[in-house]
Amino acid sequence: MVRINLVLLLASTALANETPSANDAAQLVGGALTDGRAFATTRSLTDGVGARMAGTPGADRAVEWALAEMKRAGFANVRREPVKVARWIRGDASVELIAPRATPLHAVALGPSVATPANGITAEVVEVASFEEVRALGDKAKGKIVLFNRAMERSSGFSEYGRVVPLRGGGAVEAAKVGAVAALVRSVGTGAYRLPHTGAMRYDPAVARIPFAAVAAEDADLIHRLLAAGPVKLRVRLGCRTDGEAQSANVVGEVVGRERPDEIVLLGAHLDSWDLGDGALDDGAGVGVVIEAARLLRESPTPPRRTVRVVLFMNEERGLDGAKAYAADHASELANHVAALEVDSGAGRPLGFVVAGAAPSIALVQSLAAPLAPLRAAAVSATPEAGADLIPLQAKGVPVVGLSQELAAYFDWHHTAADTLDKIDPLDLALDAAAVAVLARGLADSPERLPPSPPPPH
Amino acid sequence: MVRINLVLLLASTALANETPSANDAAQLVGGALTDGRAFATTRSLTDGVGARMAGTPGADRAVEWALAEMKRAGFANVRREPVKVARWIRGDASVELIAPRATPLHAVALGPSVATPANGITAEVVEVASFEEVRALGDKAKGKIVLFNRAMERSSGFSEYGRVVPLRGGGAVEAAKVGAVAALVRSVGTGAYRLPHTGAMRYDPAVARIPFAAVAAEDADLIHRLLAAGPVKLRVRLGCRTDGEAQSANVVGEVVGRERPDEIVLLGAHLDSWDLGDGALDDGAGVGVVIEAARLLRESPTPPRRTVRVVLFMNEERGLDGAKAYAADHASELANHVAALEVDSGAGRPLGFVVAGAAPSIALVQSLAAPLAPLRAAAVSATPEAGADLIPLQAKGVPVVGLSQELAAYFDWHHTAADTLDKIDPLDLALDAAAVAVLARGLADSPERLPPSPPPPH
Repeated sequence: MVRINLVLLLASTALANETPSANDAAQLVGGALTDGRAFATTRSLTDGVGARMAGTPGADRAVEWALAEMKRAGFANVRREPVKVARWIRGDASVELIAPRATPLHAVALGPSVATPANGITAEVVEVASFEEVRALGDKAKGKIVLFNRAMERSSGFSEYGRVVPLRGGGAVEAAKVGAVAALVRSVGTGAYRLPHTGAMRYDPAVARIPFAAVAAEDADLIHRLLAAGPVKLRVRLGCRTDGEAQSANVVGEVVGRERPDEIVLLGAHLDSWDLGDGALDDGAGVGVVIEAARLLRESPTPPRRTVRVVLFMNEERGLDGAKAYAADHASELANHVAALEVDSGAGRPLGFVVAGAAPSIALVQSLAAPLAPLRAAAVSATPEAGADLIPLQAKGVPVVGLSQELAAYFDWHHTAADTLDKIDPLDLALDAAAVAVLARGLADSPERLPPSPPPPH
Repeated sequence: MVRINLVLLLASTALANETPSANDAAQLVGGALTDGRAFATTRSLTDGVGARMAGTPGADRAVEWALAEMKRAGFANVRREPVKVARWIRGDASVELIAPRATPLHAVALGPSVATPANGITAEVVEVASFEEVRALGDKAKGKIVLFNRAMERSSGFSEYGRVVPLRGGGAVEAAKVGAVAALVRSVGTGAYRLPHTGAMRYDPAVARIPFAAVAAEDADLIHRLLAAGPVKLRVRLGCRTDGEAQSANVVGEVVGRERPDEIVLLGAHLDSWDLGDGALDDGAGVGVVIEAARLLRESPTPPRRTVRVVLFMNEERGLDGAKAYAADHASELANHVAALEVDSGAGRPLGFVVAGAAPSIALVQSLAAPLAPLRAAAVSATPEAGADLIPLQAKGVPVVGLSQELAAYFDWHHTAADTLDKIDPLDLALDAAAVAVLARGLADSPERLPPSPPPPH
């Protein structure tokens, strides 16, 4: 019933001779908020496929799912585009407190950590809160397990994550440089439920590869308190290993532009997830949003002027392989990418957009997002990077945009076993799809194009 | 410095000839809020001993800890009183979704569940939300796994827990009655972090004993959604077993009354915990509070008129063995128990007290708690039961009282691996100790005695 009323309303506003873009926005928002499909798509992926870490059978099933879902959505040119990914096997992980008392801690390996010997590594812990502190340890870290223990504060944006996550990315390298035999990091997250958060880490070819795992916040706190009274000894056992490469794929589909089919607005999300949960927030939500946004455009009475291309990237989590393959394989076409937008910040309600660019870029996105102001989803600000999968495109000058979403609870669940469908509010997700559809329509139809984005900072 | 100022303040109010009870209350509250010892005691137990399920070495260490801590506190007659407990071994637990897709769920055995065969039990799931629904299944549950799936709402009291927890207690019996081969219950808790909550269940000698485990809320939700589309098959593997009995103990210590040493105000908490976390909220907090409350009374310039006896009960969680042993072993002394108060509701701030009794009981506790009104900890109401360990005492007419505490977050962590020290706010815990000290002083000194409590309802 609501939908019928919206259609009648649109008819009357059309008679009042409003601009086509306002009509479009009302229709897109009305559709997104009444068809329930963004949530249904996400649910189909997370309930039907579940965990889908790149290189696993779950990821293969996700590729099949995406091909079928895009065809069902009526997209044109639905296809897989090959991506090679490293196959990393998690295996078992255990981190145990051995002294001053014995108790199991809650830990998970970071990818692609190497394994410990089968008997594990037993050593005393040295605690640091920063790379500066680990470098200052000198010989004190030799033969020890280094714990990077820096708490993440709850906030509504990415800045706090940005402050803490380098410890997870580079901790094994920095600890190995001072002679540590293994490293741990306090889980990068904001929950208080003894949930370890996994995530990506990296090695340096010039530095010994030591095993690296994340412990729950509670366990990092316990170690910190026990260290105040004396030595703390742990045993770390990780069974993870890298096992060659797997052939995987990005999945692509299009709503072909009616006037400039060769000019492309890319809507991206990543198809892979981590393996502990069902990847609902990260990034089943983004997958549901971009498919729904493009579907709404396909169904609009007038197709967009330019082509809207949905790209579901493979292996965002462990190396951006799909993003790199896309940028390489479509190099000749990138000058025709008028914009690339990624949705990879969970399922919180939309706040607006971030743009890698200066005042003219912000002004254009602001004008295109203006119909979202009554939804309070029209705030536009500058960003150094708009999305991990967009980094290779941004490096080649493609204008990149990100959906800005409410994040206060996101890092409670991010990269944990609790990243499950129940964390998504279907209304918030529908609003996300509405916001993306409205901006994509604007980017696809605007006579003006966004200036190229400056290169990403790293 | 703060403490010195409080002492000066007390001296000046004494000169102003206020009643001794008001002086006492100010001194007890000031002490509790400045000495940091309630939290330090709880921390010493949970960091130093950690998990201490009855029948395990952790519980043995907790008994030793309690004896030493009470001696350090200067209590008289510190002793262990023997308690036999069933030894239940948790072993490994796994619950896996087998169809429509394969994925591990998050589950823990309930105590004292029996094991499954080593290969597990593989069967389809039947979902119910109540005992009425399971009874109505008839033959439909034969050979199946019954899932009791009723969500617990967040609330500030115990009523919602009371509504849901019978499914955990009696689910195995009711499922076995209709021919189920195993049973699962949605975790009784309010968190959304894929944390399974353990707890006590019971068998009926007249009904087959089937394995019984709790799954995380997210997993119950997943099964519910998948069942809407077709059959759902699970494999349940539990390695738990009961292995005879262990000799354990309650730990008791006293502040001897100056006028009526044979009349007793009992302050109780339970020394055992579940085994998944460190038992900080349940019931390390209660242990810290009652030891601190009695210690404050011991240190007051005038000892209490009656004896204040601290009893740390063993095995509250799996059968009230310590509570039953205490009531039996002290039967001849119970007529002299003027009151028994238990602290076993976490570490939330104090709201007041509950009393098993009618208007005269409530009126007396209200008058004794009146100095706590400025702390907003003087609300007194009637309750059918004041604490699990007090049930055997209440059954013999001992007047029973409970500390009422803020509970809104308690069931996020209750009986999970995340029941750890960080969940305790030291100020709230100090306020709890202050409130208990003030009431205990009143109960120990009051010329008037509480009427006997009516028997517990079950």
